[in-house]
Amino acid sequence: MIKGIAASPGIAIGEIFIKKEDEAVIEKTKIKDAEKEIKKLEEAVKQSKTELREIYEKTLKNIGKEEAKIFEAHQLILEDPELLGKTKEMISKNKENAACALNKITEEFLSVFEAMGEGYLRERAADLKDVVERVSRKLVGVGGTDFNSIKERSIIVARDLTPSDTAQMDKEKVIGFVTETGGSTSHSAIMARTMEIPAVTGVSNIMGQVENGDLIVMDGTIGEICIRPDKKTLDTYEKRKTKYEETKRKLKTMIGKKTLTHDNHKVEISSNIGTPEDLEGVVLNDGEGIGLFRSEFLYMNRREAPGEEEQYEAYKKAAQTMEGKPVVIRTLDVGGDKEISYLSLPKEMNPFLGYRAIRVCLREVELFKTQLRALLRSSAHGNIKIMFPMISSIEEVRRAKSILKDCKEELRKEGARFDESIEVGIMIEIPAAALISDMLSKEVDFFSIGTNDLIQYTTAVDRMNNTISNLYTPYHPALLRLIKMVIDNGHKEGKWVGMCGESAGDFKLIPIWLGMGLDEFSMSAGSILRARWIINQLSKEMMEKEAEKVLGMLSSEEIESYLHELAIKMGIDKV
Amino acid sequence: MIKGIAASPGIAIGEIFIKKEDEAVIEKTKIKDAEKEIKKLEEAVKQSKTELREIYEKTLKNIGKEEAKIFEAHQLILEDPELLGKTKEMISKNKENAACALNKITEEFLSVFEAMGEGYLRERAADLKDVVERVSRKLVGVGGTDFNSIKERSIIVARDLTPSDTAQMDKEKVIGFVTETGGSTSHSAIMARTMEIPAVTGVSNIMGQVENGDLIVMDGTIGEICIRPDKKTLDTYEKRKTKYEETKRKLKTMIGKKTLTHDNHKVEISSNIGTPEDLEGVVLNDGEGIGLFRSEFLYMNRREAPGEEEQYEAYKKAAQTMEGKPVVIRTLDVGGDKEISYLSLPKEMNPFLGYRAIRVCLREVELFKTQLRALLRSSAHGNIKIMFPMISSIEEVRRAKSILKDCKEELRKEGARFDESIEVGIMIEIPAAALISDMLSKEVDFFSIGTNDLIQYTTAVDRMNNTISNLYTPYHPALLRLIKMVIDNGHKEGKWVGMCGESAGDFKLIPIWLGMGLDEFSMSAGSILRARWIINQLSKEMMEKEAEKVLGMLSSEEIESYLHELAIKMGIDKV
Repeated sequence: MIKGIAASPGIAIGEIFIKKEDEAVIEKTKIKDAEKEIKKLEEAVKQSKTELREIYEKTLKNIGKEEAKIFEAHQLILEDPELLGKTKEMISKNKENAACALNKITEEFLSVFEAMGEGYLRERAADLKDVVERVSRKLVGVGGTDFNSIKERSIIVARDLTPSDTAQMDKEKVIGFVTETGGSTSHSAIMARTMEIPAVTGVSNIMGQVENGDLIVMDGTIGEICIRPDKKTLDTYEKRKTKYEETKRKLKTMIGKKTLTHDNHKVEISSNIGTPEDLEGVVLNDGEGIGLFRSEFLYMNRREAPGEEEQYEAYKKAAQTMEGKPVVIRTLDVGGDKEISYLSLPKEMNPFLGYRAIRVCLREVELFKTQLRALLRSSAHGNIKIMFPMISSIEEVRRAKSILKDCKEELRKEGARFDESIEVGIMIEIPAAALISDMLSKEVDFFSIGTNDLIQYTTAVDRMNNTISNLYTPYHPALLRLIKMVIDNGHKEGKWVGMCGESAGDFKLIPIWLGMGLDEFSMSAGSILRARWIINQLSKEMMEKEAEKVLGMLSSEEIESYLHELAIKMGIDKV
Repeated sequence: MIKGIAASPGIAIGEIFIKKEDEAVIEKTKIKDAEKEIKKLEEAVKQSKTELREIYEKTLKNIGKEEAKIFEAHQLILEDPELLGKTKEMISKNKENAACALNKITEEFLSVFEAMGEGYLRERAADLKDVVERVSRKLVGVGGTDFNSIKERSIIVARDLTPSDTAQMDKEKVIGFVTETGGSTSHSAIMARTMEIPAVTGVSNIMGQVENGDLIVMDGTIGEICIRPDKKTLDTYEKRKTKYEETKRKLKTMIGKKTLTHDNHKVEISSNIGTPEDLEGVVLNDGEGIGLFRSEFLYMNRREAPGEEEQYEAYKKAAQTMEGKPVVIRTLDVGGDKEISYLSLPKEMNPFLGYRAIRVCLREVELFKTQLRALLRSSAHGNIKIMFPMISSIEEVRRAKSILKDCKEELRKEGARFDESIEVGIMIEIPAAALISDMLSKEVDFFSIGTNDLIQYTTAVDRMNNTISNLYTPYHPALLRLIKMVIDNGHKEGKWVGMCGESAGDFKLIPIWLGMGLDEFSMSAGSILRARWIINQLSKEMMEKEAEKVLGMLSSEEIESYLHELAIKMGIDKV
């Protein structure tokens, strides 16, 4: 059994197809005729573009518009005047061969990309590498892997998969990916989730251990593989696979259905997303809205704050994609634990108890207004709601609302369109906010309970701290009491109450939230159908009684074990 | 107006007496006869010891036993075989003169001391310096400052004051200290507080700005001085001084009185202390007990954990000094923000939300048991109560109590004496604990509310973080609600509830705590008489109504300003 990163859920059993590593070997040579070398480069670029256009068409037809886009981007890279200009300059000046010059200039570009830290943008460096590798192969005369020889039911094993690799595969034949590099936002991981096949990434040195045709079993849900399994392991995996697929089929039947209890109580299951790319998964999984759109992706990994237009476009896209379903966008939520050069946030001893989120926005008013204006304008294109994070007092809510009011006035004067009755809500993630939620509910249109932070502050346990991870629990009686208080206080004023922490999708807790009267459950897209299925098995009235019972319990251990039993009793523990 | 550190409260107006800086200038010379040089050293040490004995006797007679002790310690330093042995070795080996050798060896010792960080032990390095300076003066033939020429009503200005300086002063003539170095735990500061004269420390370069006989006004309460004041400043200070002394006289009349409201409701005013040295101030200010004895001083700045005997002696001393009055000792409360080598606490991103206090003790069971055994044994000598910090769940309380039970069994078997009915309580400083205080009150004998941390976690504001200090407020409605909840839940089970955070001594909040039914107010020794005076002006019944009114208010600002008005109305705002 080898552990890796769980990059795309599901179980697969099949034969290995190795993506060969025939990388173009770049050697530096002195050339005499720079003109001729530049021509050679231009020819290689032209051929690559033609290939990319073909891959684009093929992807568009076989996979989808969103996936094809990447090859448009690749073509654009090959039109980048700086990349090619600098390469040509190096060829002329240094009399270096084209392949060597191109790769040197690319390295420079990549070092900038990779300095950007983890995450989305860094992964995009992979696109540049992919394109340059393609051109280099032309220049030195090496072919790529021939994906035409893939057999039925193949599991691709590779050091890394590029967008053009996946575009060339026959999707019908591929049933899984295993790669050495890449996190859960790598191209291989994203593609696997789109293709709905399991993927395990980050398996170090897998390439050295396998041969073409070897049997392999993999579980992308937990990030586990086994090469050349014995009979017993194979049996276990077969059983797990059958079970998994059964469940998946069952859950698929929930698409298009309402989230409705036995006794006809309706709630909303929406999704938490981090970038506009995540919207697709929400649509695929029939999310009833976006319960939390983190806007940080716009602010990270760059040298200056995003402008109003850029933000407007991003929010508008979300509004339009969701076609009138609610999209709750949280305003900037960063602090001293993140490197954002243009904000010059201080290094802090306890960043989680520091200068962050709304605390920053209420001081950096211009930054805040830019976001609020973009949010307001995007509300003309769908059902946008604005949510303020890290609220701890009524003063903060009033100040934020007053700045929002100023933005509305400005836009009215400018004649810009926006939803005049746009809903404004707050995160309830600090104990103080929960404790005065009776007062806060008079100020806002909705609450969204952020359980991750609320647990952290209520129990004084940093959820990133491994030493005390045993103390970080969503089953703490104090937390359940606070949440009940928040829901009741919201309802007293006729406001809806959602939850966007991880506990919203916890099968043991869903019954209790339902019993407490939670109106909206926001979770990762992959959990939506499961939660809908669970709620459809339950009765609101019965869960009210269960919630009451649990609220009288003494300890997290007692509560968790009771809820586990309850889940078994309700038959919702194994979906 | 020059700002410094407020090291001892009070206002003084007088003439400057400068402590001259005739430090022994140590020059390195090669000597021929090492034997002779060692004799010279021994003679200087002998003379110094004689002087120290005289200073000891004088201090014992004029100031007190506790203060005189320091000169016993100085004599002991001069008997340290390592200090003198190494010095002699260096004289013999390197043929260096005695003064130079002694100072080199001393530097080595000091570097160890000073690596120990801030605080009590580091300040003790001053003792070693003081003694070595005395011996060095003998060796090179320089005299010290002649304190005999001090006039009436003098304010001593010095780079730093040593224990022997203060011992030689005629206390009747000195009315204030101003020093360049030293924090609020420096010798000058401690002495000033004992002598009940104002002191301002940390005034950089004051020595260069004054001459003997200059007029100076100082306010040790706020840490402010003014050299050669104009008429207006002098008048202001005269008025402040009169007011201050009036108040002080008024408060002195509270010694020996009960803490009793108009309508005969009795509460207890006790004190927070950090070391056994602080006990004296509590006795002087007629504290009704120790509400919080921080036991960390025993664990800090050393290479291994303190043993049971050492701890027993320290706790016993507190029990005996307080003569049957309650002494609440908090078990070890440290975390990753402190350097305690033998505990190997991990460096953490958010130490205030990390592995600390009871969380450490419940894993380091042997360490915990040593402390509990010492605490139990000390309970034979007075009214000791044990308090567990950083409790967030009922499981933690039960585990801690079970370990305590084991310790009791062990001691019973060993035939050791302890108070079988010793009270066990917990700090309520984490929101989770406050929220389940109804359950916790069934498990313990008392609660002590730690407002400093409770504010911090409830509002997610690090109290050490200057950027967001405006958000750190004891007037937050959420905090007041939690505290009311804790007091009510304690009383429902017949348990007493105290408070040991800074807010316990806040004149604006005392009326509200009283109204809520708080039983014990624990604060710094210097605030005890003031709090007693305040409570004696109030009626419990009236304050109950005020507390109720305040609990309905929306914001910290509203609450603080209302309480300020209330304090003025009650005439308790200017003591």
